[in-house]
Amino acid sequence: MLLGRVVGTLVATHKEPSLEGLKFLVLSHLDMEGKETGGYRVAVDAIGAGMGEVVLYATGSSARQTTVTDKRPCDGVIMAIVDALEVGGELKYDKARDG
Amino acid sequence: MLLGRVVGTLVATHKEPSLEGLKFLVLSHLDMEGKETGGYRVAVDAIGAGMGEVVLYATGSSARQTTVTDKRPCDGVIMAIVDALEVGGELKYDKARDG
Amino acid sequence: MLLGRVVGTLVATHKEPSLEGLKFLVLSHLDMEGKETGGYRVAVDAIGAGMGEVVLYATGSSARQTTVTDKRPCDGVIMAIVDALEVGGELKYDKARDG
Amino acid sequence: MLLGRVVGTLVATHKEPSLEGLKFLVLSHLDMEGKETGGYRVAVDAIGAGMGEVVLYATGSSARQTTVTDKRPCDGVIMAIVDALEVGGELKYDKARDG
Amino acid sequence: MLLGRVVGTLVATHKEPSLEGLKFLVLSHLDMEGKETGGYRVAVDAIGAGMGEVVLYATGSSARQTTVTDKRPCDGVIMAIVDALEVGGELKYDKARDG
Repeated sequence: MLLGRVVGTLVATHKEPSLEGLKFLVLSHLDMEGKETGGYRVAVDAIGAGMGEVVLYATGSSARQTTVTDKRPCDGVIMAIVDALEVGGELKYDKARDG
Repeated sequence: MLLGRVVGTLVATHKEPSLEGLKFLVLSHLDMEGKETGGYRVAVDAIGAGMGEVVLYATGSSARQTTVTDKRPCDGVIMAIVDALEVGGELKYDKARDG
Repeated sequence: MLLGRVVGTLVATHKEPSLEGLKFLVLSHLDMEGKETGGYRVAVDAIGAGMGEVVLYATGSSARQTTVTDKRPCDGVIMAIVDALEVGGELKYDKARDG
Repeated sequence: MLLGRVVGTLVATHKEPSLEGLKFLVLSHLDMEGKETGGYRVAVDAIGAGMGEVVLYATGSSARQTTVTDKRPCDGVIMAIVDALEVGGELKYDKARDG
Repeated sequence: MLLGRVVGTLVATHKEPSLEGLKFLVLSHLDMEGKETGGYRVAVDAIGAGMGEVVLYATGSSARQTTVTDKRPCDGVIMAIVDALEVGGELKYDKARDG
């Protein structure tokens, strides 16, 4: 899995019928310091993530292992909201402090 | 999923029989500002996308989760036409305005 | 899917038994202008592609969705020979003209 | 598979129910000399890896082939703790010596 | 599939039980000229490859399509030993000559 920050939304009315009702969010890639790298991914929100939150997302077939994405043409899913990220003994991100 | 702009078409008469009748489109990769990055992907059109439109596409096994691509040797599918892309509070792409 | 030009062959007599009889071709990656980028992929030929031809190939589990690659440890397959590639209104590759 | 060093932890209380109880570790990518490259991956720990250890991890659908990750939206798993890595006749990493 | 040269071995006594008995080899990536690129991959040896040999390996779910890797958390497998690689009409690698 990789870390991303929710930075945007995407609206698409004309789409595969199986995608009806799914929420697409734009994630800005984060490195392990919690800094944006410039890359992005559009992912389906399976857990109710909010704008600005740091999340964990899964790609590929693993992105279909949730109730909302099962058997759908979706290759990215947000499956966890990060509370704290500690790397090398330092708290790189703390939702209460930085969120 | 990633964003692409439909920029071209591909004709292939000699192919796997299971691909008969599928429409292959050339997608130019877009970053999250909606700008072309130089990369591309050929994807099967599952929804009737038009030249110049901004679309969302899925890759890998997820690209086979549509009726037209099911069980076919296809690793990229267009499954949504983007109406609006908002990132960082700005409307980066609006089909009515830019499409 | 991505575009490649058939530039080489690979011989391997000692291999997984399930790969017996498959033809491995070396593909030079092409960008959407039809120009070689320096990258490559070895793919199984499912359709009888010839040296120098521009082809479309699929990777990952999608590469196993053909009769010859089904259930085999193969992650790349050539599944279409390109006749024409048109990008931005220009004919970047035409088999009859450039092939 | 690729090599990583366990450098951090991630806490996420709000997540897909199927991920409940899984331990997420931050892996710093290693090259084949055993040196960190700057990249990372978050992976589920299937074997009880400790901070600072060099591990082997698998990605994609292969990351779901363990009891703890089966059918879960997880695309990275730690499935082995490296004792020794020998490349080009040199012992690049030895857990007893460097661990 | 991609080309690699077997350059090393990896020992891991503490691992997923299903990986017991598998042999992990370190592969140095080769370009289509047969030259090392600096990248690597750890792969399970399904065919008895030897140190220094040039091999073909598959990744992702395709890496699980051999008897030894079936249903295991393994995303890379060596499934062929290369005898000859011919690109652009030149013999870039010949096991009898260079092996």
